[in-house]
Amino acid sequence: MNLLRDSVHAVTAFAPATCANVAVGFDILGFAIDGVGDCVTLTRREDKQIVIDAIDSPATLPLDVDKNTASGVVKKFCQELKIDTGFSIRISKGIPLSSGMGGSAASAVAALIACNAFLSVPLSASELVPYALFGEEIASGQQHADNIVPCIFGGFTLVSSVEPLEVVQLPLMEFCCILVHPHLLVPTKEARKILKEQLPLKDCIKQSAHLAAFIAALYKNDIRLLKKNLTDLLIEPQRAHFVPGFYKIKDAALKAGALGMSFSGSGPSLFAFAKNEVEAVRICAAMQEQLKAENIDSDSWISSISQYGARVQEIT
Amino acid sequence: MNLLRDSVHAVTAFAPATCANVAVGFDILGFAIDGVGDCVTLTRREDKQIVIDAIDSPATLPLDVDKNTASGVVKKFCQELKIDTGFSIRISKGIPLSSGMGGSAASAVAALIACNAFLSVPLSASELVPYALFGEEIASGQQHADNIVPCIFGGFTLVSSVEPLEVVQLPLMEFCCILVHPHLLVPTKEARKILKEQLPLKDCIKQSAHLAAFIAALYKNDIRLLKKNLTDLLIEPQRAHFVPGFYKIKDAALKAGALGMSFSGSGPSLFAFAKNEVEAVRICAAMQEQLKAENIDSDSWISSISQYGARVQEIT
Repeated sequence: MNLLRDSVHAVTAFAPATCANVAVGFDILGFAIDGVGDCVTLTRREDKQIVIDAIDSPATLPLDVDKNTASGVVKKFCQELKIDTGFSIRISKGIPLSSGMGGSAASAVAALIACNAFLSVPLSASELVPYALFGEEIASGQQHADNIVPCIFGGFTLVSSVEPLEVVQLPLMEFCCILVHPHLLVPTKEARKILKEQLPLKDCIKQSAHLAAFIAALYKNDIRLLKKNLTDLLIEPQRAHFVPGFYKIKDAALKAGALGMSFSGSGPSLFAFAKNEVEAVRICAAMQEQLKAENIDSDSWISSISQYGARVQEIT
Repeated sequence: MNLLRDSVHAVTAFAPATCANVAVGFDILGFAIDGVGDCVTLTRREDKQIVIDAIDSPATLPLDVDKNTASGVVKKFCQELKIDTGFSIRISKGIPLSSGMGGSAASAVAALIACNAFLSVPLSASELVPYALFGEEIASGQQHADNIVPCIFGGFTLVSSVEPLEVVQLPLMEFCCILVHPHLLVPTKEARKILKEQLPLKDCIKQSAHLAAFIAALYKNDIRLLKKNLTDLLIEPQRAHFVPGFYKIKDAALKAGALGMSFSGSGPSLFAFAKNEVEAVRICAAMQEQLKAENIDSDSWISSISQYGARVQEIT
């Protein structure tokens, strides 16, 4: 039985949106974003039930405890750690649903961070990962760590192994990140299902060269090398049709100075890197203008890569 | 017409053996080795013929100018640069034939470096690459840069793009490299032909994680991370049967402390990395002992990764 801190009645935690894949690193790279994320508040209840009180989201999300990622992970966490209390859960979704911005990961991670703060001897960040992966399984049927890891740890992360977990924190170059969320729905499960199970050897070789050079560019702080290699020959062509006018948007971003542009996660959100904020504003406008020409509304964020992962915001 | 230096009568150049692929970087990574390589001497002749005078090698190599990589590249170089002289060529093969140690690349590169030294205004190292690639085409039917590039430039190289050529010099960690050459013939063409043209997506993802973490490990000087990721899930299993007892040799190398072991190039030579020379000697002995148990003789070299590429040795 794990002991709870008697003084703690409610905890609110924040978990950032994340951009996974990053063009060159399908399923292995991801980074955390400043200024957009999900908040989860857990309030202790004496009846030992786990209940979703409210979800503050423009979209409808499941209130069923086993289908919602936040409550699902809290339930598993409490069962496995033999936590002898119940929780009321309030979820505030800052991240648009099925946007490719790591929304399911953020809800699960925020819930876990909040739950963990009730413990007298809380788990380490690494120990939270398996629970968060369980949340991804609830959401998409598969345990992917590429959003979970930057969401928990912050920074620009490489998951070099999932089992056992091995994370490399990559250098944070000082570029700006643009995220554009077209108002289209692309469920992660569907985005996964369409991918070919086999890849041509010659494309794999070329893409591996881009990945290796991209990693080297981060360590060398070499913008030119990064720009030449921030490209995806394998997955992007299979998903480009998710967003009408995808290649026009990409062209517009690159013409406006982007170091590269591709899907955030499985899309439909798009990320681009810019050398500085002035260029980022221009690139973002160019991308949204192209979407507008396709009659697609969009939201956008401009942010640096955040070195901070999920964290407790309030304890009462 | 390119002008020749009148004072130069003969040039001898040395080009090092190279280890390509390096487990994690099929077709893109390679490094130069100290202490073993090919020498080529070009002596000017007035009859404007290009002739192979002698090949000093235990194996029989083609004396036909168009079939030998050294003379083939010299001929092309002279034609394209309109060099108005002939050359007698002597080749001294330090690198065993069809060993996977970059022998064809070394002969071509040594010949080019020698030929270039006759010019009043010699080409840059990068400008020699296309000619050396032509030599690889003579040897194996394909233009691979993964031996050529470390042979010309030295060091540990990533070829991030062949056309146009883009080379990243990776950090040289201070480990020892072991090369073991089993006395077996594996022609590069054959080694290439057996490879599957399609790879499973899930293996590509895992291997990309190994590659990315390996590159990061070089920059972080992190032996533990390097060791965990110096592994090849894609190509090695398809070629393991080239060397009887391959997995026993690998086990023996790892048990003796190797940071990893795989094929050098397309094999049959094997490379391993060791933390220091003492361990390298032990690892090398363990590998050769396993080969002996399979009744296979072998040669071996222990060397650091050489920061030096091909160079002129003597001008008369």
